[in-house]
Amino acid sequence: MANKGVKIVTIGGGSSYTPELVEGFIKRYDELPIRELWLVDIEEGREKLEIVGAMAQRMVKAAGIDCTVHLTLDRREALKDADFVTTQFRVGLLQARIKDERIPLSHGMIGQETNGAGGMFKALRTVPVILSIVEDMKELCPNAWLINFTNPAGMITQAVLTHGNWKKVIGLCNVPIGATKMDAAALGVEEEDLRFQFAGLNHLHWHKIKDTKGNDRTMEVIDKLTDVSGVDSGIANLKMLRFLPEQIKDLGMIPCGYHRYYYMTDVMLADELEEYNTIGTRGEQVKKLEDSLFELYKDPNLDYKPEELSKRGGTHYSDAACEVINSIYNNKGTTMVVSTENNGTIDDLPYDCAVEVSATIDASGAHPVNWGKFPASARGLVQVMKAMEELIIEAGATGDYGKALQAFTMNPLVVSGDGAKALLNEMLVAHEAHLPQFADSIAKIKANQL
Amino acid sequence: MANKGVKIVTIGGGSSYTPELVEGFIKRYDELPIRELWLVDIEEGREKLEIVGAMAQRMVKAAGIDCTVHLTLDRREALKDADFVTTQFRVGLLQARIKDERIPLSHGMIGQETNGAGGMFKALRTVPVILSIVEDMKELCPNAWLINFTNPAGMITQAVLTHGNWKKVIGLCNVPIGATKMDAAALGVEEEDLRFQFAGLNHLHWHKIKDTKGNDRTMEVIDKLTDVSGVDSGIANLKMLRFLPEQIKDLGMIPCGYHRYYYMTDVMLADELEEYNTIGTRGEQVKKLEDSLFELYKDPNLDYKPEELSKRGGTHYSDAACEVINSIYNNKGTTMVVSTENNGTIDDLPYDCAVEVSATIDASGAHPVNWGKFPASARGLVQVMKAMEELIIEAGATGDYGKALQAFTMNPLVVSGDGAKALLNEMLVAHEAHLPQFADSIAKIKANQL
Amino acid sequence: MANKGVKIVTIGGGSSYTPELVEGFIKRYDELPIRELWLVDIEEGREKLEIVGAMAQRMVKAAGIDCTVHLTLDRREALKDADFVTTQFRVGLLQARIKDERIPLSHGMIGQETNGAGGMFKALRTVPVILSIVEDMKELCPNAWLINFTNPAGMITQAVLTHGNWKKVIGLCNVPIGATKMDAAALGVEEEDLRFQFAGLNHLHWHKIKDTKGNDRTMEVIDKLTDVSGVDSGIANLKMLRFLPEQIKDLGMIPCGYHRYYYMTDVMLADELEEYNTIGTRGEQVKKLEDSLFELYKDPNLDYKPEELSKRGGTHYSDAACEVINSIYNNKGTTMVVSTENNGTIDDLPYDCAVEVSATIDASGAHPVNWGKFPASARGLVQVMKAMEELIIEAGATGDYGKALQAFTMNPLVVSGDGAKALLNEMLVAHEAHLPQFADSIAKIKANQL
Amino acid sequence: MANKGVKIVTIGGGSSYTPELVEGFIKRYDELPIRELWLVDIEEGREKLEIVGAMAQRMVKAAGIDCTVHLTLDRREALKDADFVTTQFRVGLLQARIKDERIPLSHGMIGQETNGAGGMFKALRTVPVILSIVEDMKELCPNAWLINFTNPAGMITQAVLTHGNWKKVIGLCNVPIGATKMDAAALGVEEEDLRFQFAGLNHLHWHKIKDTKGNDRTMEVIDKLTDVSGVDSGIANLKMLRFLPEQIKDLGMIPCGYHRYYYMTDVMLADELEEYNTIGTRGEQVKKLEDSLFELYKDPNLDYKPEELSKRGGTHYSDAACEVINSIYNNKGTTMVVSTENNGTIDDLPYDCAVEVSATIDASGAHPVNWGKFPASARGLVQVMKAMEELIIEAGATGDYGKALQAFTMNPLVVSGDGAKALLNEMLVAHEAHLPQFADSIAKIKANQL
Repeated sequence: MANKGVKIVTIGGGSSYTPELVEGFIKRYDELPIRELWLVDIEEGREKLEIVGAMAQRMVKAAGIDCTVHLTLDRREALKDADFVTTQFRVGLLQARIKDERIPLSHGMIGQETNGAGGMFKALRTVPVILSIVEDMKELCPNAWLINFTNPAGMITQAVLTHGNWKKVIGLCNVPIGATKMDAAALGVEEEDLRFQFAGLNHLHWHKIKDTKGNDRTMEVIDKLTDVSGVDSGIANLKMLRFLPEQIKDLGMIPCGYHRYYYMTDVMLADELEEYNTIGTRGEQVKKLEDSLFELYKDPNLDYKPEELSKRGGTHYSDAACEVINSIYNNKGTTMVVSTENNGTIDDLPYDCAVEVSATIDASGAHPVNWGKFPASARGLVQVMKAMEELIIEAGATGDYGKALQAFTMNPLVVSGDGAKALLNEMLVAHEAHLPQFADSIAKIKANQL
Repeated sequence: MANKGVKIVTIGGGSSYTPELVEGFIKRYDELPIRELWLVDIEEGREKLEIVGAMAQRMVKAAGIDCTVHLTLDRREALKDADFVTTQFRVGLLQARIKDERIPLSHGMIGQETNGAGGMFKALRTVPVILSIVEDMKELCPNAWLINFTNPAGMITQAVLTHGNWKKVIGLCNVPIGATKMDAAALGVEEEDLRFQFAGLNHLHWHKIKDTKGNDRTMEVIDKLTDVSGVDSGIANLKMLRFLPEQIKDLGMIPCGYHRYYYMTDVMLADELEEYNTIGTRGEQVKKLEDSLFELYKDPNLDYKPEELSKRGGTHYSDAACEVINSIYNNKGTTMVVSTENNGTIDDLPYDCAVEVSATIDASGAHPVNWGKFPASARGLVQVMKAMEELIIEAGATGDYGKALQAFTMNPLVVSGDGAKALLNEMLVAHEAHLPQFADSIAKIKANQL
Repeated sequence: MANKGVKIVTIGGGSSYTPELVEGFIKRYDELPIRELWLVDIEEGREKLEIVGAMAQRMVKAAGIDCTVHLTLDRREALKDADFVTTQFRVGLLQARIKDERIPLSHGMIGQETNGAGGMFKALRTVPVILSIVEDMKELCPNAWLINFTNPAGMITQAVLTHGNWKKVIGLCNVPIGATKMDAAALGVEEEDLRFQFAGLNHLHWHKIKDTKGNDRTMEVIDKLTDVSGVDSGIANLKMLRFLPEQIKDLGMIPCGYHRYYYMTDVMLADELEEYNTIGTRGEQVKKLEDSLFELYKDPNLDYKPEELSKRGGTHYSDAACEVINSIYNNKGTTMVVSTENNGTIDDLPYDCAVEVSATIDASGAHPVNWGKFPASARGLVQVMKAMEELIIEAGATGDYGKALQAFTMNPLVVSGDGAKALLNEMLVAHEAHLPQFADSIAKIKANQL
Repeated sequence: MANKGVKIVTIGGGSSYTPELVEGFIKRYDELPIRELWLVDIEEGREKLEIVGAMAQRMVKAAGIDCTVHLTLDRREALKDADFVTTQFRVGLLQARIKDERIPLSHGMIGQETNGAGGMFKALRTVPVILSIVEDMKELCPNAWLINFTNPAGMITQAVLTHGNWKKVIGLCNVPIGATKMDAAALGVEEEDLRFQFAGLNHLHWHKIKDTKGNDRTMEVIDKLTDVSGVDSGIANLKMLRFLPEQIKDLGMIPCGYHRYYYMTDVMLADELEEYNTIGTRGEQVKKLEDSLFELYKDPNLDYKPEELSKRGGTHYSDAACEVINSIYNNKGTTMVVSTENNGTIDDLPYDCAVEVSATIDASGAHPVNWGKFPASARGLVQVMKAMEELIIEAGATGDYGKALQAFTMNPLVVSGDGAKALLNEMLVAHEAHLPQFADSIAKIKANQL
């Protein structure tokens, strides 16, 4: 690896995030000498790949580094002898996301990309694709690391571990990064002067904070996060203010932003329905953003990541991916929050599932800091969500309709019953093109036999 | 115990169920020679106690057995040297139940006696009372068995075990009894020719069925239970027909009737709202039934259990209690489904919680048949419900508002968020008279400080 | 099964125990109508098979039942369409047992059939044979039950479960039967008036006793078992007297007889060495007993089980096997102590290992009574023994020398180190004929390369 | 803490190790500004305290740092407002250690300071003392950290956690430090270029090694450690050469040096008996070393740690203690191997026991790297040893003779039975002066009643 330079393959290379990723690699070039970056996409993404790929090439050239950016639709050619494979693809593009949002909302239920019915469908579409990538990797680059930031990152990581039987995988999310920045600001100290310990699942983790004296500062952050009395609290994120203070104080841990879907379901649903009926769902908004981003990317003079990308959401994501790769390559032992195999880190969850926890990352992968047991107030939620995830992964890998229905029934963001089944069926049909494993069930649904 | 005859104390003796209990004891008198039956109630229940107590005395007299029925408002006098204590009291009487039903429904959420917000409040009111009974028992009858059929029976049994630190307790429910009768009818065989194994929580258990050849008949019953095509399926219980067949078949286990609240939430809520807006909730219907039952009981010539009691719901309950007592007293080794300490019977739940499982009952108590692990499709639900139960028991024992709010947030039948908190607050105030442990929180709510 | 009558296959049919087995079947004929009993043995056992087989045929004829006893060396012919397969074979016959005893004793270590180095070698020889039987059963009688009483019964049962992947297996031992008889005698009550609960491993279980009033009588039995002051204690078994009273009282449970190897190693070793140097080891004694038994069996007028068989040891074994078969066939629900899959019955041991526990036996197999956790004083021993068992089973199935060495190191009855390795090597060579899976290691040992 | 400077209290301050500790503090003074070092001892240790204390004062003076070294026999005065308490005392001094070694050896069993009968007795004497220290700390310095390096360090740490209910404790051992140095030398690389992960119990841990490329180098070290063919293996430690290569290779992990007691019991016993009969046991040798060390310490010109101390054994111990204190004080996040609460770090051991594992040490204490499950070849041993430890801790805290006997029975280094009891009794009597909790049992032993 060291002699020939590092070969990185990015699947879903036509993503609007790619410039952040490329910027991250350029920034770390001295430590992480990438010789080849392969951006891979599929036919439907060819145009975006060409636009963003050309820009990536300009960025690399402007940086003056010795790295070749390859654009290809041939995944197998790209994977050959790769050192790291990053995945940032979206099966069905933003059109699929918009369906994941709008169809549940039309049934009066949460419609979101990684939570509720939408999140479950994103997983159903993605699991077969990630498993086929893993099969290619076993053949073409059996020593490579897979760094996944395709959502829902926890379920995809678990699918790779359990159904793909591929252990060199790390899942990534930008949520913990944002949280630590916000917490440090709330306390008025530097991030590096705090010790954070996270545990839970992707988009469903909690964390605690200690300072340099070993004092627990968690409650102080909670007080600031739930203090709605003044604008000077130093916390800009309005949505964070909408937790119930009594609940978060009782938890004694800081929930992640996505917990609002589970802790404040009514408020979140009302917000989403408001947008659904007016400015469009988040996916629709992002679609417009993306279109204008790609217009920018077309500019043959643009050879740096434009400021506008930060509005896209998902900021820090690509940078985190670069840092994981850097930590592995240089055996740095950086502490990060990643999705990895549980192995007893969280005592309340199955031994072999994926969890999202604080871990040190070095050349041999992610080494989780032990967590132990959750209090009942977190335990029940994390357990029901993990069971739901297992059901969806199984359904995604096999096309088992019953398992998908169980997951819909169990997911707290779906009201169970006839409506849940009707929603499941409608979404299966709507996503038919990307759910070949459900072909039989979809045929029955269309024939009113399911 | 044997020499002096058995002394039984029934707390909540003024219940309309008492005649079934008395009938059960009379029926078993040859095996279970009860010399004293103490019916205990509180001042608010004096009138009912006197009516039903007099009837109990007539029943015993008509049976010609050597047993004295005592009526008293003095619980401590009654408990002295008791052999068995049965609990069937209802804190706040049916008026409280009606609030448990109507207030959630007025917020558009499930309103039910043992599930959802109503069930949680029933537990909050009952936990302190059962713990005070246990304290009396430690002093007055330290060798007695506590047979609890006060609902929610699982949470009350766990409170006795964990907060009361009293191990000689068995919790009872009539649901499994009804299920086995229905299953046998569905298969057209005698109940005693089937082997049932139940596991889960009170009002949230699943079971499997084997026949005399060791063949698994579970799927066959599931097919009949979910077969809606004809009226000749042999299953009279309409509500059972409303499960989603695909879900139950995928489970491979038979859920209990109350699972409909979790599996068919939309349908159940619609049904409840319909009744709420028309004929009144179940509690209101039962109230009328009870009033007419007590009219019947007043008849000085009535000395047997009237047929009308079976409409009351809860049939088999008292009979099951008699059978548990009989099995303990006579060391019978009967297999029953009871709430008892887990101790690893269900691998997915905490070691020291209460579970509802098949067990043999003999002189040394309940000995559960080992169950092992649930599939993910049941595991997540049973785990989230147990965590919710733990939170409610803790809140009931201590008056901790935060814990109650966590439970409301976690309960799948309450939509979390501002509405959940508003519902919690409204119910705390409505039940103020029976929630002394929450006095401080209630004062704050009234002052708009919580 | 019912129509054609039951077909039973006994592998190791030439055993001297066979008359007890046949007597057991005759005794239960009304309940358990066996039409065919196939006694199977191998070429080396042909003579014994013919002698004991002829006697079995005489017994059946004398009983006047409609059952044919077949004698064969063709295992596959016998297994075809069997309903129950019982295994009582001994790989290498008594000669192998004598080596298992004498070689360890020559190294100054415990030499015994089911414990220590001898027990481990018995397992190493037996595991491949039982696995080949299971492979035949999968093909020839896939619905049959395997009732194993070949020792070491626990390890063999586990090998069938984990390496054979055959779930319809029950392992049997006569030790618990003897214990309950002795306990009842010690208390002066009938066995059926006591409730025994056993848990642990084969030849390493503990039990507790309750009476018809639910009172724990365990300590009372312990007091009698450890009371060495008088001959009137009612306990004839001298060996039981040699426990240390303080240890057994502290345990609060009754150990099995074989615990003496672990609790009284010095005394047991001294006893064994005394016999080794004088009258011969147990195996040598049994050899003489067997020879005289077969002389008896040759008598063409003998058509009943002779009294002399009871001295053979292992009494009750065959009768227990008949009772298990009877309980399965007639769905009786009898409570017995059997080796079966743990599935959380004992919380301290792996989920999927074999344990020996109280269970009810019916048409669907063994249903263990939940046990929970052991106190530390039993937990450590049962855990180290289970790990040793796992290593031996793995070594037996694969011929892995390292695993066998680990097991020798871990077994408390082998002094670890150079001597343990020398003992292992000597025994591998001595048993070469029955350890084909270790051929490579044995060759290296002979060449002084291991 | 920062303002007034750090106050450190060392209990057992008269130990010959104290100069290393003082050197460690002097070396780190810039980072860890100790203002007060209190050396505490008891009346029996007064002379040694005065000698080594005077030398400590000379060392501090020579270093020119602003730190006062106090010598006292008044533990409570010293503990007042302490920031860190280190414990390095030896109940009964070296005379007790010599008994721990000689008495078992006189029975033909391993006699060693921290393993076998000797280690168990060291724990029995130490547990009551450490618990009384903890009681003083609760009153006098409730925010202090307890850094224990009194042996057996794992059991003492667990006693503090479970019986003392004091969570701010870290146990320390020098064995892992020596191991990592030796491994690095074997591989010919720098220690900091390797990643070590340790897990197990004090004096019973295993570890694995990765290099900067993430490659596992464990087997390579094992090969070198077990390669006895040449003197150029780079490993000087003869004792390490005496493992059985086949066993260690099969483990796939590197055992600690003390594993030889469990893996090579025969060889170790022979070595010990040889020394016992000739040059004296290790304790006797150390006694002479100590006497000459204290002669050195008396030299009023000696103001630095003499080279001779390194022969004492236990080198690195005090330095490790300084580094733990430094890491806590300065929130350094150093990775060290310490005894701390399990909390699921090792899945095979009780949740609340003490384990010895790799952990990062910072201002909030020790944060273990998750380990997961052991293979069976290590699992059984670590489980039986933990159960033995629990029994000894319980016996030490309560004086329960039965628990001590159970521990003797279970410990693999004691041959169970009559001899084990005789050994236990003889040692109880021999250590009577330091076992007040066993006064009743000792009186019975003397009266031949036990």
